[in-house]
Amino acid sequence: MSGAGRDAGGAGEVRIALPPWVAGAVDWERRYGTDEEKVRLTVRLAQENVEHGTGGPFGAAVLESATGRLVAVGMNSVVRLSNAVLHGEIVAVMLAQQQLGTFSLAAAGLPAHELVTSCDPCAMCLGAILWSGVKRVVCGAAREDATALQFDEGPVFPASYDYLRERGIVFARGVCRDEARAVLELYRRRSGVIYNP
Amino acid sequence: MSGAGRDAGGAGEVRIALPPWVAGAVDWERRYGTDEEKVRLTVRLAQENVEHGTGGPFGAAVLESATGRLVAVGMNSVVRLSNAVLHGEIVAVMLAQQQLGTFSLAAAGLPAHELVTSCDPCAMCLGAILWSGVKRVVCGAAREDATALQFDEGPVFPASYDYLRERGIVFARGVCRDEARAVLELYRRRSGVIYNP
Repeated sequence: MSGAGRDAGGAGEVRIALPPWVAGAVDWERRYGTDEEKVRLTVRLAQENVEHGTGGPFGAAVLESATGRLVAVGMNSVVRLSNAVLHGEIVAVMLAQQQLGTFSLAAAGLPAHELVTSCDPCAMCLGAILWSGVKRVVCGAAREDATALQFDEGPVFPASYDYLRERGIVFARGVCRDEARAVLELYRRRSGVIYNP
Repeated sequence: MSGAGRDAGGAGEVRIALPPWVAGAVDWERRYGTDEEKVRLTVRLAQENVEHGTGGPFGAAVLESATGRLVAVGMNSVVRLSNAVLHGEIVAVMLAQQQLGTFSLAAAGLPAHELVTSCDPCAMCLGAILWSGVKRVVCGAAREDATALQFDEGPVFPASYDYLRERGIVFARGVCRDEARAVLELYRRRSGVIYNP
């Protein structure tokens, strides 16, 4: 077959970068010692994302588990980058792997990594967590907090978590849940203003 | 907080492009009239990916349902781009949305789109399908074909498909299953040569 109308370049290139406000919002030198500190970082990312109008109310981060060193952050970038896949967790995992030059955060020679997210992951992100190589996941708001506000989380079942746990992934959920839920509510209030004036 | 050691640019940019061989392997002018033709395209993408050493044995494509016009193709790019998220379906969806400038392939004014994949989607990709806006999914090899060859498909259950069906997504599975399974076996044979000489 011939590549008549379009070559591989013409098929396009996807570029994924963080919004400019991240430079002023993230202290890369800080060490995050507790799960509460880690979740609060992702909640702040979610809130800044809403306030800057750059996406939905979801933030995420990848850290080294032992040191609390921040490796990468992500935030919902679906509308900003016209890309349905770019949930906060996906952006954080992609940027962490880009930075470390590996498709597995559990690659030989690397310290253990964890993913922190301001809200329980959707079905897509839960799958991505399995492939990412993170050993631990810390979540803020619960799935029910998201669905109560009409965010669809997709086909996630208790057995989905069991599947990941059986493969050695540890979960800590509901950390700073009220603070994390508050940013979902903030977004809903603002969306209400935009769509139902 | 100050952006001391790294700014948003320093946090990196992810770039996703197709391998060069795609230009010679895909006829963008062709119309794909049947599910068999569509699955064979994705199987060919999977096979070329293996033969060129650019990734795992999984290919995908996004097409307009009514016309059979090809919008975007994808193939497993996890190792090539050091990115665990880049399964064939994810690459095809991202490139289709990039090309159409929208985060939903079901956006107003667009014709209905479908995703075709050489193998049943993993948990991550099934979630991505839900968010992508495609109305129909066509699959070649079955989940069991993949897992029999030690490919992990993640937490996918019958209820996962039900969840998507309830939201209006139609599935046609097992199309050209034998041809699609053969490329999985090809990859396993080659991997056997590489890892177990």
